[in-house]
Amino acid sequence: MNKHDQEYIKHKNKSMVLDVIRNRRPISRADIAKITGMSPTSVSRIVADLCQAGIVKETEQFSSGVGRKATLLDIDASSVLTVGIELDKTEIKIGVVDFDGRIAAEHTVSGANHDKAPQAVADTIAAKLLELVRDNGINRDKIIGVGIGIPGIIDVDSGTVVFSSQLGWKNVAFLKLVEERVGIPTTIDNDLNVKALGESIYGHVNESRKTVLIGIGSGVGSTLVIDGEIYRGETNIAGEIGHFNFDPNGMLCECGKRGCLQTYIAEYALIQEANNFKKVSRLSEIFHEWRAGEPWAISIIDRACTYIAVTVSNVVCMYNPDTIVLSGNFIEQHPHILEAVRAKLDDFIWEPFRGTFKLVLSKFAGKSVMIGAASLALNLRLDYELQTS
Amino acid sequence: MNKHDQEYIKHKNKSMVLDVIRNRRPISRADIAKITGMSPTSVSRIVADLCQAGIVKETEQFSSGVGRKATLLDIDASSVLTVGIELDKTEIKIGVVDFDGRIAAEHTVSGANHDKAPQAVADTIAAKLLELVRDNGINRDKIIGVGIGIPGIIDVDSGTVVFSSQLGWKNVAFLKLVEERVGIPTTIDNDLNVKALGESIYGHVNESRKTVLIGIGSGVGSTLVIDGEIYRGETNIAGEIGHFNFDPNGMLCECGKRGCLQTYIAEYALIQEANNFKKVSRLSEIFHEWRAGEPWAISIIDRACTYIAVTVSNVVCMYNPDTIVLSGNFIEQHPHILEAVRAKLDDFIWEPFRGTFKLVLSKFAGKSVMIGAASLALNLRLDYELQTS
Repeated sequence: MNKHDQEYIKHKNKSMVLDVIRNRRPISRADIAKITGMSPTSVSRIVADLCQAGIVKETEQFSSGVGRKATLLDIDASSVLTVGIELDKTEIKIGVVDFDGRIAAEHTVSGANHDKAPQAVADTIAAKLLELVRDNGINRDKIIGVGIGIPGIIDVDSGTVVFSSQLGWKNVAFLKLVEERVGIPTTIDNDLNVKALGESIYGHVNESRKTVLIGIGSGVGSTLVIDGEIYRGETNIAGEIGHFNFDPNGMLCECGKRGCLQTYIAEYALIQEANNFKKVSRLSEIFHEWRAGEPWAISIIDRACTYIAVTVSNVVCMYNPDTIVLSGNFIEQHPHILEAVRAKLDDFIWEPFRGTFKLVLSKFAGKSVMIGAASLALNLRLDYELQTS
Repeated sequence: MNKHDQEYIKHKNKSMVLDVIRNRRPISRADIAKITGMSPTSVSRIVADLCQAGIVKETEQFSSGVGRKATLLDIDASSVLTVGIELDKTEIKIGVVDFDGRIAAEHTVSGANHDKAPQAVADTIAAKLLELVRDNGINRDKIIGVGIGIPGIIDVDSGTVVFSSQLGWKNVAFLKLVEERVGIPTTIDNDLNVKALGESIYGHVNESRKTVLIGIGSGVGSTLVIDGEIYRGETNIAGEIGHFNFDPNGMLCECGKRGCLQTYIAEYALIQEANNFKKVSRLSEIFHEWRAGEPWAISIIDRACTYIAVTVSNVVCMYNPDTIVLSGNFIEQHPHILEAVRAKLDDFIWEPFRGTFKLVLSKFAGKSVMIGAASLALNLRLDYELQTS
């Protein structure tokens, strides 16, 4: 057993103590020791760390029963806030979120972010966050972390946007830019990753142990969350179904390869196809014609639903989840889309997978990246406190 | 925190103690307490359980340093053996495997198992295992578990072969049949699952934290192993890429749907296609003609390699692993196949995934299901001892 393993065990012990307090609050140190099998000394040391970090507090209640009365411990829910930010092509959404995933205050900044200098975007975030905190009388000291969800490939460890076609950024060390402006520990991650995390922690799938979120919009992607943890893969790009190959001789994708799933269902692909028949520039126009019963629009939406059903089926084959959350612009354009996909699913789902999963819509819809980013920040900060305190 | 959680923590503590002994053997109880942060009482209790279970033994060495000399503990590697069994259409391979994955004795029973009565197959297994143990002077008491890898859908918890087209079985409670004949705790699982586990524990990918094994033979499937644990999904059928849909209007698959991956690369599909041109009944005949430079055979193998490369690319998109192990009859027919797939992979792999994974062949080839099944039995028995002792 090397040093790394010892650190790991120490960290696990701290997580275990925090989990016991979370689930059985209020609770005494002696009871924590009894439940965890740890020595009273170890428990006291860890509790002291957690109190100092402001996560745990001593209550004014005492344990009942025989012997010396012991002070009970509780989570200090109100002392811990995190900020969740969604940064995409056209908006910045900022929210202050509490320990239980409730939004205490929020603000949306509209305006194109594509090709904007990262410094300018970070400036806007810092200024608007300051404003939000001030205008809502929030105690800034209670904010322990900032989480940002960004469309694209994110190197989580270094806090770098490796590539984001939506923002037009490549290798931007964005975490640092934000952190040095807001002065609060910051973390960045892929938008679908945080969205999936938020849905699995606070959404209506919070009983789910294996949630997959599938996002269908300007790009196509998915994220698997196993027992409340994002399955990132080796380089944080697991679930990149958009570049899933369907046909070696298919249409050319923006990635330079042929036949990727994106060429069948991404927004730009549908718009491009529609233009073979009629000049349109937005997905909502296709849906408008679809509702009006235009055959060409029905054909486009119908084919997209077929490939979404195929995608759900393929994701189920790979991940065998208990829940699939569908999200994104295409899915949210019309309430009937979910039903259309469900109806088609019967044609594709392999017998042994029938009845093994629920197919639902995102609970938080437009706010899910914000809430998810905040929950990622909370998890990471708690983890960090546990590791370093 | 409910009873389940307390049991879970107790179990985790035992695993932790066993891991510490495994990695730092020989070691004293006091040092275990120091490293784990557990109380000396808890450590002593767990160690007593592990000694009683025969997994851990007291050595004749003592700790150095000041104070009372403490007896050092070690793993009793020689006292623990498991049996790994591969059961497929045409063979039963039985091997006795030690704690370190070495085969102590093995035996292969040839003969069709398809449509054979499960009772008869269990009889054969029990008789041959007895023979193997007797003929090789193996102490039967040292065998703590039997693991069996079977092609098909396996309900691991109930020990049932839900469906195996290779064996022609449906809802066969096979675990019970074997267990009551051999009198040793038995476990059954999908053959690819145990194969992947064996490769990731004892194979040349044992540094890998995210291994995917892809099997291409009479069927097509894959298994992801994360940190030494099979990712099973919700109902133990994660990784079923054989029924991955490529084309809603594709060829009819044996599952009754159209365009499944199997219809492109499974053995039967290739043989069927070959018969459009020439009467062949085995894959090896196609390979024979391929080596002889026959254009039709080159076309079939070439297309299969294309779809295998596409499959590798798609699996990488989903799982983002550090290692992919290719295995199965098609891959193992000729050493050049791996190279052919590698060469094609460049055409499909999305830029961000380049260089993120190794593509290798199975290390144990024909013995990998046997070794994998034994390693599953070992893990489960250790786990069981930890939970119940």
